[in-house]
Amino acid sequence: MNIEELRPCARMERGTRNNLCDVPGVRVGHFTQAEGCRQTGITVIVPGAENPFFSKLACASFVLNGFGKSLGLVQVEELGTLETPIALTNTLNVGRVHDALVGHMIDACAQEDFVLRSVNPVVLECNDGDLNDIRTRGLGREELERAFQDAQEDFAQGAVGAGRGMICHGLKGGIGSASRVMEIGGRRYVLGALALANHGRKADLLLGGRALFAPDDSAACDKGSCILVIATNLPLTHRQLARVIRRGSVGLARLGSFIGHGSGEVFLGFSTANRMPHSGNAAFVSLEALQESLMDLPFRACAEAAEEAVFNALYFAETVTGRDGHTVLSLRDALRGLHP
Amino acid sequence: MNIEELRPCARMERGTRNNLCDVPGVRVGHFTQAEGCRQTGITVIVPGAENPFFSKLACASFVLNGFGKSLGLVQVEELGTLETPIALTNTLNVGRVHDALVGHMIDACAQEDFVLRSVNPVVLECNDGDLNDIRTRGLGREELERAFQDAQEDFAQGAVGAGRGMICHGLKGGIGSASRVMEIGGRRYVLGALALANHGRKADLLLGGRALFAPDDSAACDKGSCILVIATNLPLTHRQLARVIRRGSVGLARLGSFIGHGSGEVFLGFSTANRMPHSGNAAFVSLEALQESLMDLPFRACAEAAEEAVFNALYFAETVTGRDGHTVLSLRDALRGLHP
Amino acid sequence: MNIEELRPCARMERGTRNNLCDVPGVRVGHFTQAEGCRQTGITVIVPGAENPFFSKLACASFVLNGFGKSLGLVQVEELGTLETPIALTNTLNVGRVHDALVGHMIDACAQEDFVLRSVNPVVLECNDGDLNDIRTRGLGREELERAFQDAQEDFAQGAVGAGRGMICHGLKGGIGSASRVMEIGGRRYVLGALALANHGRKADLLLGGRALFAPDDSAACDKGSCILVIATNLPLTHRQLARVIRRGSVGLARLGSFIGHGSGEVFLGFSTANRMPHSGNAAFVSLEALQESLMDLPFRACAEAAEEAVFNALYFAETVTGRDGHTVLSLRDALRGLHP
Amino acid sequence: MNIEELRPCARMERGTRNNLCDVPGVRVGHFTQAEGCRQTGITVIVPGAENPFFSKLACASFVLNGFGKSLGLVQVEELGTLETPIALTNTLNVGRVHDALVGHMIDACAQEDFVLRSVNPVVLECNDGDLNDIRTRGLGREELERAFQDAQEDFAQGAVGAGRGMICHGLKGGIGSASRVMEIGGRRYVLGALALANHGRKADLLLGGRALFAPDDSAACDKGSCILVIATNLPLTHRQLARVIRRGSVGLARLGSFIGHGSGEVFLGFSTANRMPHSGNAAFVSLEALQESLMDLPFRACAEAAEEAVFNALYFAETVTGRDGHTVLSLRDALRGLHP
Repeated sequence: MNIEELRPCARMERGTRNNLCDVPGVRVGHFTQAEGCRQTGITVIVPGAENPFFSKLACASFVLNGFGKSLGLVQVEELGTLETPIALTNTLNVGRVHDALVGHMIDACAQEDFVLRSVNPVVLECNDGDLNDIRTRGLGREELERAFQDAQEDFAQGAVGAGRGMICHGLKGGIGSASRVMEIGGRRYVLGALALANHGRKADLLLGGRALFAPDDSAACDKGSCILVIATNLPLTHRQLARVIRRGSVGLARLGSFIGHGSGEVFLGFSTANRMPHSGNAAFVSLEALQESLMDLPFRACAEAAEEAVFNALYFAETVTGRDGHTVLSLRDALRGLHP
Repeated sequence: MNIEELRPCARMERGTRNNLCDVPGVRVGHFTQAEGCRQTGITVIVPGAENPFFSKLACASFVLNGFGKSLGLVQVEELGTLETPIALTNTLNVGRVHDALVGHMIDACAQEDFVLRSVNPVVLECNDGDLNDIRTRGLGREELERAFQDAQEDFAQGAVGAGRGMICHGLKGGIGSASRVMEIGGRRYVLGALALANHGRKADLLLGGRALFAPDDSAACDKGSCILVIATNLPLTHRQLARVIRRGSVGLARLGSFIGHGSGEVFLGFSTANRMPHSGNAAFVSLEALQESLMDLPFRACAEAAEEAVFNALYFAETVTGRDGHTVLSLRDALRGLHP
Repeated sequence: MNIEELRPCARMERGTRNNLCDVPGVRVGHFTQAEGCRQTGITVIVPGAENPFFSKLACASFVLNGFGKSLGLVQVEELGTLETPIALTNTLNVGRVHDALVGHMIDACAQEDFVLRSVNPVVLECNDGDLNDIRTRGLGREELERAFQDAQEDFAQGAVGAGRGMICHGLKGGIGSASRVMEIGGRRYVLGALALANHGRKADLLLGGRALFAPDDSAACDKGSCILVIATNLPLTHRQLARVIRRGSVGLARLGSFIGHGSGEVFLGFSTANRMPHSGNAAFVSLEALQESLMDLPFRACAEAAEEAVFNALYFAETVTGRDGHTVLSLRDALRGLHP
Repeated sequence: MNIEELRPCARMERGTRNNLCDVPGVRVGHFTQAEGCRQTGITVIVPGAENPFFSKLACASFVLNGFGKSLGLVQVEELGTLETPIALTNTLNVGRVHDALVGHMIDACAQEDFVLRSVNPVVLECNDGDLNDIRTRGLGREELERAFQDAQEDFAQGAVGAGRGMICHGLKGGIGSASRVMEIGGRRYVLGALALANHGRKADLLLGGRALFAPDDSAACDKGSCILVIATNLPLTHRQLARVIRRGSVGLARLGSFIGHGSGEVFLGFSTANRMPHSGNAAFVSLEALQESLMDLPFRACAEAAEEAVFNALYFAETVTGRDGHTVLSLRDALRGLHP
């Protein structure tokens, strides 16, 4: 079976790289730990060249299934802004990465002579405890900085960074990304999706609309999670971003997820085109909103990009052996095992 | 093309009737208006034999897309209960049906010597303005009572009741229903779904995982809505029902919807197994909750039943000609027009 | 005891009229029914001279206690806009006023050659069933239009319009209003509050920080409701409006309410300074937001105006005798009965 | 001026200790750091003798103002349960305390031979950056364990634990607590409140319904936060707890807060009387709910206890000098400075 033929069809045009960084300014970096029972990492999403604390980005979150430990969403919903890079890691390591991101922001602000005394790090997570010895919480400031140093537009996908130990639909999952182009008002805009895919059961996986793997007799339940980060340079408000990212669930459902109980689905979206200064003399801030009747474009782009992002996590991931010698096959390797 | 082969596969067992009324006690009735430019109606869902005002049912709502005019959700979310039958009708007629349902409840309570001075009718809606002269708001108490008189377990599906004028994926939509059986703790429980399907574009429709109709060049956008009512005799709390009905979106997505801007998606769920008395001497009420780790069963049942309910709306609906001679083909008739 | 001395102190400057209509363009009208057992009415809030359907206003709602039957909030939260005048009436009459407002909007849009097929009326309510024969749902299109005809800037307060039969802290309540001026960026802005006050127990009422009335031995519980409508010409987004109106609860609490179980508290806020066109050629809409660090000004204005609006409902209301000869004293009359 | 006379009056009976631990089983412990520029700490709330991970408690959260960094609320809202003790600390230290609480739970579960791979610590915070060198994030596992070792029923209040560096209404704030007794169905139940009070402006403080301190000309804004934890042995469901804790805002408002922009108000409530096992053979769990019409009792108890808890933070706190020699007066010391 040819893996290429299983790729979800794109009705909208893909961006140049077909990843999150087709949104100008966005970069993604990984720190990957892949040693024996430690199969884990950190992935950072840098929303632009400047320090986001001083020029906050319009942002919204949507919790489809809150059985998860993601940090920082309370303030995102109240103020509608993102003021740090986004970090992804494993479930039990979120506290340490939160603290590391506080330290990173203190130092970054100090470079601009600002004494930071409050900041809201956004740290999202999935549980990689099947492949990774998750109880060893070994990722801190040093590992976070290495992820930042790796930040680039042509970032790796698959079993890398926070995705190193993740399992998606019973196969090796991890980091996947995709993007779609929208033509609005004579200009081209991009919406990108990045998935940390760690959800779903093997028997439920739909590729090309079909279930390829045999129904599972075991009582294996969906114990994963799926984080989706959506970025766009389309000017959207907090409320509009909240509407757009809800369509991420369409992508998950098309690939076979029924959003299982144990699968914490958290979506976050930001726009690089609406900025809120941390402070300043201006009493008012000008924002641009998309005319609401045109929202079908980013909705469709989000649904398509989310679906292909999860697919790409499966597409790029390699087979990994981790904790207790537990091996999880890549989609490629699993397809080879299927009868033709 | 054989329409039977397009039916979504069921991994879980269907209920006896494969409709909402497989949940014991639930009945559904229609009043259908089908005269020239008036193609509309009312559908009522009666949750049990007793007056729900005196023995309220555990209930929750989920607004996937709030571009809609459904009435009564504020109190459902605060108190977690349903205290009237549920009425479905067209967008501009919700006020009149709300008033009719108030009158119905006043009379029903008077039969038990209770003077009703406050009640929360739940009235859900979609916009049938393409086929129906929606501006003529002609449905009131008389039409509502005729729907109640029609209430039965083997209710009609398709272009009937509130579904008379609805359009789904560019084809004739309306009322559809399906159910799934869950075996838990040695007993069999049922979850049923009823859809008022009025959403989606033709080119987006996925049947058997494939798009059968040609991509649409027109700028036709998704201007519909989809109401989903989920009933179960599984004991679930308000919070658990809220989790279950969210999975209705999986069904919509699998059939091709991306939850368009103009499509108000409102889901409501109730359990016949957890009751709250209107008043009484007891200071406390006993409730049963499903052990949370077993929630995958109702989640999957909801996703499957919602998908098949929408399919059944298409399956049962006939071709209808309405306002300004506008004709909308049924799925059956549209399939005949496809090249083999 | 001098009623004037009980007025809450204003730390911020009051608007010229000290009512909702200090916000330029806003008008308020009443239809009052005061005949024997029918003590009820309709109050309309007209947000501006133009039809709001074509130039929608930024709007948000906050449900502090959802034990209520207010209609139209689902779409307000999704789209962040108000597209009709706001109508207030009694609990069981909301369906009829909803239908009347649909009719009003169809006609209003027809005057501009627009064929309206979908609209989201906002109808808010409290229960006046103690003084009014609420089961007679006698208010429809004619009564609504008379309220519109009465719309003016110097509107009546007290036992008028929707407030005719309302009871607040055991005294005659109803419609009250107040406003505060904010100086921002060298310009003066106004925030106005209008309360439909029907909540609270007599023994709990705090005036000047003190309880004037004796503790109540009876088991009388709080069975009312309080609707707050906040208007401003300060440019605020949907999200910012949602933050501002939450502070309405401060005003209720300062006057002694603990937000009782039976008291449905629903707050709605709109800004006349941020508009969304119904349609048009422009792909983007420009909005203005207040710099977030200045939000304390509208927060404080909302808390103060809400408190004084509820006070004014008590201040202006007269003693009323209604259903079954039930009499509710005004605050003035009740104060006369207190020992000095 | 006698500080005792300023205490809010209690219409309901206080519990024996008038603190959170009047709820049987609940204990509170502090670790306090009070050295020069380090004026901070950790406070833990232990909900019972057994490990809450195995027998989770019904729990709900309410975010009145989300300008805060509290951790763990996403899962609380999804699953309606608390599975760890609650930790309170300063804003920038939440990541470290989160990680410490993960470690604590891993060890606690290991004592019962359970290998913990996922857990949702609840860590709440306020910003003590005015008195404390908050950028030094010095509180970790060791300090957390010392707080646990200190856990007791007669815990200290005022400038202790997480409250060491907090400022409330311009005076020394910190930890305060109070409780109220409810008689329901012939039995006595207790509701307790614990506040981490760090909010409000001096000029706004209302004691006995009056502002004692002079209006502030400075542009000093409300930059604090207030955390409220509500505990009860009354059987309430997740939904009912969510309703109860909302009334905490009444207490804040009565003491003069208008819930300022910079003041992140986060409330959390749990009941010791409804338990959800982590796992087990039972398919269903029995819960008890309070008859909804009796909810006024816990509502009033929450409003009163929250008000007195904040008052007690002021009442018990001592004058503290911290970072950069900054001194914040206690209420007692500030009252001495007032003209009689």
